Amino acid sequence: MEEFRTVALIGRFLTKGIDQTLDRIEHFLRNRGLAVVRRTAGSDQPAGHPSLQRATNDTQDPGAALAAGIDLAIVVGGDGTMLGVARELAPHQIPVIGINHGRLGFMTDIPLDRWSEALGAILDGHFEAEERTLLETHVLRAPDATVAFQARALNDVVVAPGSNDRMIEVNVEVDDKFMYTQRADALIVATPTGSTAYALSANGPILHPQLAGIVLVPVAPQALSNRPIVLPDTCRVTIRIGEDMNARVNCDMQTFSDLHPGDRIVIERSRHRIRFLHPSGYSYFETLRAKLSWQALPIIAPRVP
Amino acid sequence: MEEFRTVALIGRFLTKGIDQTLDRIEHFLRNRGLAVVRRTAGSDQPAGHPSLQRATNDTQDPGAALAAGIDLAIVVGGDGTMLGVARELAPHQIPVIGINHGRLGFMTDIPLDRWSEALGAILDGHFEAEERTLLETHVLRAPDATVAFQARALNDVVVAPGSNDRMIEVNVEVDDKFMYTQRADALIVATPTGSTAYALSANGPILHPQLAGIVLVPVAPQALSNRPIVLPDTCRVTIRIGEDMNARVNCDMQTFSDLHPGDRIVIERSRHRIRFLHPSGYSYFETLRAKLSWQALPIIAPRVP
Amino acid sequence: MEEFRTVALIGRFLTKGIDQTLDRIEHFLRNRGLAVVRRTAGSDQPAGHPSLQRATNDTQDPGAALAAGIDLAIVVGGDGTMLGVARELAPHQIPVIGINHGRLGFMTDIPLDRWSEALGAILDGHFEAEERTLLETHVLRAPDATVAFQARALNDVVVAPGSNDRMIEVNVEVDDKFMYTQRADALIVATPTGSTAYALSANGPILHPQLAGIVLVPVAPQALSNRPIVLPDTCRVTIRIGEDMNARVNCDMQTFSDLHPGDRIVIERSRHRIRFLHPSGYSYFETLRAKLSWQALPIIAPRVP
Amino acid sequence: MEEFRTVALIGRFLTKGIDQTLDRIEHFLRNRGLAVVRRTAGSDQPAGHPSLQRATNDTQDPGAALAAGIDLAIVVGGDGTMLGVARELAPHQIPVIGINHGRLGFMTDIPLDRWSEALGAILDGHFEAEERTLLETHVLRAPDATVAFQARALNDVVVAPGSNDRMIEVNVEVDDKFMYTQRADALIVATPTGSTAYALSANGPILHPQLAGIVLVPVAPQALSNRPIVLPDTCRVTIRIGEDMNARVNCDMQTFSDLHPGDRIVIERSRHRIRFLHPSGYSYFETLRAKLSWQALPIIAPRVP
Repeated sequence: MEEFRTVALIGRFLTKGIDQTLDRIEHFLRNRGLAVVRRTAGSDQPAGHPSLQRATNDTQDPGAALAAGIDLAIVVGGDGTMLGVARELAPHQIPVIGINHGRLGFMTDIPLDRWSEALGAILDGHFEAEERTLLETHVLRAPDATVAFQARALNDVVVAPGSNDRMIEVNVEVDDKFMYTQRADALIVATPTGSTAYALSANGPILHPQLAGIVLVPVAPQALSNRPIVLPDTCRVTIRIGEDMNARVNCDMQTFSDLHPGDRIVIERSRHRIRFLHPSGYSYFETLRAKLSWQALPIIAPRVP
Repeated sequence: MEEFRTVALIGRFLTKGIDQTLDRIEHFLRNRGLAVVRRTAGSDQPAGHPSLQRATNDTQDPGAALAAGIDLAIVVGGDGTMLGVARELAPHQIPVIGINHGRLGFMTDIPLDRWSEALGAILDGHFEAEERTLLETHVLRAPDATVAFQARALNDVVVAPGSNDRMIEVNVEVDDKFMYTQRADALIVATPTGSTAYALSANGPILHPQLAGIVLVPVAPQALSNRPIVLPDTCRVTIRIGEDMNARVNCDMQTFSDLHPGDRIVIERSRHRIRFLHPSGYSYFETLRAKLSWQALPIIAPRVP
Repeated sequence: MEEFRTVALIGRFLTKGIDQTLDRIEHFLRNRGLAVVRRTAGSDQPAGHPSLQRATNDTQDPGAALAAGIDLAIVVGGDGTMLGVARELAPHQIPVIGINHGRLGFMTDIPLDRWSEALGAILDGHFEAEERTLLETHVLRAPDATVAFQARALNDVVVAPGSNDRMIEVNVEVDDKFMYTQRADALIVATPTGSTAYALSANGPILHPQLAGIVLVPVAPQALSNRPIVLPDTCRVTIRIGEDMNARVNCDMQTFSDLHPGDRIVIERSRHRIRFLHPSGYSYFETLRAKLSWQALPIIAPRVP
Repeated sequence: MEEFRTVALIGRFLTKGIDQTLDRIEHFLRNRGLAVVRRTAGSDQPAGHPSLQRATNDTQDPGAALAAGIDLAIVVGGDGTMLGVARELAPHQIPVIGINHGRLGFMTDIPLDRWSEALGAILDGHFEAEERTLLETHVLRAPDATVAFQARALNDVVVAPGSNDRMIEVNVEVDDKFMYTQRADALIVATPTGSTAYALSANGPILHPQLAGIVLVPVAPQALSNRPIVLPDTCRVTIRIGEDMNARVNCDMQTFSDLHPGDRIVIERSRHRIRFLHPSGYSYFETLRAKLSWQALPIIAPRVP
């Protein structure tokens, strides 16, 4: 059985009432004999507790300091908090547990009012581990294809217009084969994890977390017969920015970079994965039904009397 | 002020516990000095009370008997119950009030637990009247265009495959101008009232009840650039059935007819409207938000941390 | 019969080869005894011909100079060229003819290679006139609701994020009744004319040009049960910008204004309409089929052998 | 290098002009020293040539006779013709080449006017082989879960209403975990190959042929927040028919079976795959662009002037 000794306890930055929750969880963990380090996500400022500094350049390894000496991370916050932590810890094989401090999350799947029984069970070894894929993005710039930007994403890589523009026009290649020219408000490349985030609003399909796929979803595509397309996650997707375009790329809506005309954005599955620990009996479908209101959903006006 | 003297109290057929509700409402109405006739919707059988017979041929006037002598109808049931009553009463200018015996309905907008205050207010003259359009459908059959079928619809007219077929192929003309050839699982022609019923499932838009329009929504159209199209409700829509087609038309999913190859289905706005009475302060948008869970709706995984 | 004496001939700015076309059309018109004034659309610069100055403030009447002394306008360009001209001429009851200098347009419906026969027929009185509605937009700013911006639109009014933001959060009221809170990439309010432009990409329905309606189409709405909604065009739509929002409004993608948190955007049907003249036999549906490739459209892999 | 000696040449049943094409291809093949057997797809009748009988029970091995003695099959027809041949040949590891006798197909990707150069190149060993997954469907019937029906599908398995019904209501389990209750016009379970067929009309995503996934697409689902969901193709999907349902299952729209209330439909990836041979340089994306008109597609009314 996996044994955990030192836990990073990570709370969302500037969240009302979160300190009391963190205090209680820290107390609970220490009572079970674990060492605890605390930090705050979403800010470079230490939070008044022994905390970890955050490197500011995503191209280095911002998670190295956080990962040092711990063998488990517990995130208290929302899915947005989890995104940043997961990107940083993925290369270090540190598993993560998510406790939701607000609404139920897809990744922060332990409700606040059940954290103690859920943590207790997981620390006793009653958990289900689940691995999620991430994407690595490199922006290659002419004339010599230097790497102008790189970042990791757990949800999605989005190419969108820069300021003062309303549309993008890009060419997309898959493993160096031309796929299509896309004129749209934006183009989303999402992992299964990201398929229930922004991509879903743009009419993308849901990808099961264990599907070895990524999905390309255009937002408001000009071509009316355009559709989301799901590719094997072993594919390398290259997005070429049109010559007159003023575009921008972002990863998980958290890391941004302006693009130059002619830039190539190369997106590949990361060789790292992030491991989530869920209480035994966890069901992805149950989370899905709850988040998408499939249970409560309107039976619209009846078709039969 | 409109004054009501004789009320038809109409309950959904074979609905558990509905008799007690109807008894209480009848008692309430008689106490206010109104005469009450009771009937059961969705069946030709009288329901053990002085009741009204239902004509069986929609091409005649099945509502004449029901409408005779009354100046208001109160429907207790669901939207399906309301559909039938509204189609019958529309030609007779009898206003209708809907009390929902189950889930909140679009048309049966008075919740069961508030019927007495709502009815009291309406009978005191504190109500908002709202008129809804209906459609008249005629099936014209070759060689001499005799009327093979006719029916009224409050929600929608749907052309769907007959048994042993999976698709329809039809030509659609608008005011005798060719619009398109449609190959699809079905073609829905919906009123504003019907736009939140079957048409909405098939990706149709919501039409405000006071919009003077009807919407054509194909179900699973083969042409990927096909889209729902909203026409002025003064248009006459003619649907021509393909030569090899085995198709069927239905009105409000309640009246069906098999079609012959070459049949023309002519759909026009009815010259009759149905008048709904709502308690003062009624808001269509509030019903919409409640029925479509817009209030409670999932804020999907966050786009910003 | 309507008789035309002085025609404004308006070409798209900086368009290769357009001058020869304009010369030929001018020659044709003069041969028929008409007076011709020429101008260039999409620029304030006169184009080397006796031309008309363009006022720069949309809140005044930029079309007054153009409209002075003419009784017909002929636009040679694309639908984008037409948008600007139509907005300017609408208050002056000057009818417009559109000749397409590129692809077939929705509004510039006369193909370049058939301009002479089409113009000849129209000038002989063989035409069909069609009126299109426009929208008037006013931005009201706290604390005293001064008009911070106003503009007219033939296609659409779009509320979108300002720079450095990815989403809008707005409240929408219809005739002062609360409709919904919308969290989305953008919110489009489109006329029937605009329903086949940006709104169509965002999954909006097609509105027939004679439908007395406007459609609200959210782009990538967070609420998955959200749908486009079509309102009577007599409605006044008020969009309130959220307190933390950094948003922008544009009309026809051609007139922009930054918004302040708390701004109210009030959108109403213009009391002006623009009148398009089409050659006799014009069919809106034919244009629709051609533009949306409904004729040529892929019959996707067969459902039956 | 793979060497082919005996080829089955299979033409679509009752197709005008197909015999001359088949004669020319047979001549071409014999000239290259191959033995040729001919048959007609879509009928049990031998077609006047030495032909192969077709077994009539899909639960046995209808492809055994066809596969006997051949090492390659060439199909001349459409994608519908290919579906039947591929289902039969999949267990026998016989590769298939598709020549389109009508419109370009997804699977019959060699245009009629280029068959000789394409076949010549393939027979010379210049080809790309591509494997496609199939589904196996078993209907298990209460009380003792006997197999009431079984069939293979290359495109899709569709659960739809039986005659006189308009909707299905089913429970879906994935690897014995409850996923959702689906109320819809139909439920499609499609392979990547089938993702561009019926599922695409119903708003499903495109799955790349090499994606190890299957997609569930509801047609006109009542729950407005429902979305297509893509599962790993190692999953076992079980569809339970509601107690009052009158439903039907079909495979590739070619093999049908009526269902009983309470039936379980178990769908799994087949252990067989079908191997398609394409001329060197084949591009799936090129076929996609051509079939979906992505090249020619309407640039809808311009967003910028």
